Amino acid sequence: MPEPPTARMRVVREAQRAVYDRDAVNRILDEAFLCHVGFVVDGQTYVIPTSYGRDGNVLYFHGSAASRMLRRLDQGVPVCVTITLLDGLVLARSVFNHSMNYRSVVILGTAELVRDPVEKLAALRTLSEHILPNRWRDARQPNETELKATSVLRLAINEFSAKVRLGPPVDDEEDYSFPTWAGVIPLVMTAAPAVPDERCQLELPGYLKNYSRGKRG
Amino acid sequence: MPEPPTARMRVVREAQRAVYDRDAVNRILDEAFLCHVGFVVDGQTYVIPTSYGRDGNVLYFHGSAASRMLRRLDQGVPVCVTITLLDGLVLARSVFNHSMNYRSVVILGTAELVRDPVEKLAALRTLSEHILPNRWRDARQPNETELKATSVLRLAINEFSAKVRLGPPVDDEEDYSFPTWAGVIPLVMTAAPAVPDERCQLELPGYLKNYSRGKRG
Repeated sequence: MPEPPTARMRVVREAQRAVYDRDAVNRILDEAFLCHVGFVVDGQTYVIPTSYGRDGNVLYFHGSAASRMLRRLDQGVPVCVTITLLDGLVLARSVFNHSMNYRSVVILGTAELVRDPVEKLAALRTLSEHILPNRWRDARQPNETELKATSVLRLAINEFSAKVRLGPPVDDEEDYSFPTWAGVIPLVMTAAPAVPDERCQLELPGYLKNYSRGKRG
Repeated sequence: MPEPPTARMRVVREAQRAVYDRDAVNRILDEAFLCHVGFVVDGQTYVIPTSYGRDGNVLYFHGSAASRMLRRLDQGVPVCVTITLLDGLVLARSVFNHSMNYRSVVILGTAELVRDPVEKLAALRTLSEHILPNRWRDARQPNETELKATSVLRLAINEFSAKVRLGPPVDDEEDYSFPTWAGVIPLVMTAAPAVPDERCQLELPGYLKNYSRGKRG
């Protein structure tokens, strides 16, 4: 397991669950598409949910989700971006050893406004394809006005760590005889059948059938 | 719709999606159980995922998930706690009008360490019952050592707001003739069949069958 890139990135609690390997982190980033962005305005911390896309070592997300942040974006904004996949409830014999299976990534850095129109369009395509592959080419593309009304932020994925817990509960040895069910309830985000809007008469295209996030790449 | 409790709590972007009603907020808080806690240590923002429970107008969460935060908890720690339920992908005819259906709550306040052992035990029970009703009485209760090794934080739910988007896509009128499928792909967190651990010989109890978070209370 590689060392964490910086001291402030070191996982403090349950360090045995820490992951600093970029490929492992990228797999988590590619399965999820919702992040929580933390930043400070006038001494107050805000945490805002938004979607993101990844292109190599860069994370792109919509600036519109964090308009408070954008007010002072000229110099870039220090952020903490956290991505969490919840995989299951872990039921031990003791309340104390109950846990959750999860995979989470924390990225620290300075988010910057994407100003170059070419990069902005590419970033929006990255975001779209990250959430829903093949959708971009099948929808009406952004026009100039829409591009101007959209802000996209860029965050280099340089300072990061992940935490992963998987597998069954771990009980204290003397608790294994305690008479209660123990194991894992796996949790999965699943897609229900797509619901066309009232004015849509078209067949559901293949790329929208059986939408799933798991085990990609 | 009530007014937001404070200016810093006012939803800036897409204000028509704002919800300041406590009952509506409580329904979101009771369906979810994962929050992202944002706080600042030495000028650096951190956002950490952890589980929570609600008791009236108080949110309880494990301090252990945020040990960096606990170092300076004597005076309480200013936090932003954000809870997000993702309900669907919203596919419009134009890329620009793509969106997500979601329900999110943001709570600002000062998290305090729960010091009273009676409140701490009750808070742990609240957390446990919030995530998995009926589990607490069926598992081995915490002992003194475990209680001391656990830290629980209390956050008053006084300063809060929610944002909710639901329903079909909304396209620009001239885009409705654009020939692409449009509608919603609903997303649901579902439980797969429970997996007993290797040393568990017991039947799965009724309260662990068909675990689901939706539409409670």
